[in-house]
Amino acid sequence: MADRCVFCEIVAGASPASVVHADEQVLAIMDIQPVNPGHLLVIPRRHVVGLADLPEDLGSAMWSTAHRLAGAVRRSGLRCEGINLFLADGEAAFQEVFHVHLHVVPRFRGDTFRLSADWRVRDRDLLDSDAAALREAFSG
Amino acid sequence: MADRCVFCEIVAGASPASVVHADEQVLAIMDIQPVNPGHLLVIPRRHVVGLADLPEDLGSAMWSTAHRLAGAVRRSGLRCEGINLFLADGEAAFQEVFHVHLHVVPRFRGDTFRLSADWRVRDRDLLDSDAAALREAFSG
Ligand SMILES: [Zn+2]
Ligand SMILES: [Zn+2]
Repeated sequence: MADRCVFCEIVAGASPASVVHADEQVLAIMDIQPVNPGHLLVIPRRHVVGLADLPEDLGSAMWSTAHRLAGAVRRSGLRCEGINLFLADGEAAFQEVFHVHLHVVPRFRGDTFRLSADWRVRDRDLLDSDAAALREAFSG
Repeated sequence: MADRCVFCEIVAGASPASVVHADEQVLAIMDIQPVNPGHLLVIPRRHVVGLADLPEDLGSAMWSTAHRLAGAVRRSGLRCEGINLFLADGEAAFQEVFHVHLHVVPRFRGDTFRLSADWRVRDRDLLDSDAAALREAFSG
């Protein structure tokens, strides 16, 4: 357990949580400051900071639980017209709790969630050179 | 193939794309309107609209590819201090292309990407009743 990691405390039963699912690898708990009611977090039992130290099988368990939970949110009667899955890896990506977690967020028309960025169409030659750099790193 | 689905056209080789990875199940391509350079989309070869019609093994293949790509983006030399993984399931969740896709977004301090919502701490009794509704739907 990392010092004062709130998710490790929840896993250990030392901090309160509203638990939706628990198995040998992961827990799914309610986010206490939700985007919308029903907003869930899927966390591994083990203290893992982010994607770099997340074993592949444990990541797959997180994903598979989130995928099944997305169906459950839609069937639950909670307001849900769409779902976002979101993961923040690193402070620059808005990670706030440094124990990896995958958000499952129910969405509906007129809710308050917004995304913004300076989205611009990127020229094909730049996309191709980005892709070349990524292919090399991916196979390396 | 769905009528005029741009991702099906890319899979078929009928529309241009900057491809980083291709295997029997999924493709990883550059987003033409990236949040930041290096922004990737992982898409299944099969036309699948969203999480509800996504077979579990195909979803796992998408996730696993995205997880490995996240490491590649960090190693690539492209500017990357963090990573967001994001999936929009349904129009209310900001899905724009109705062929499921998982975003892999390099992030850095000072970039233009922002999230906002009316985040409020939710009372424990409400979290507990949300969790009860979700547990019932999850096991049902
Ligand atoms: Zn922890
Ligand atoms: Zn398609």
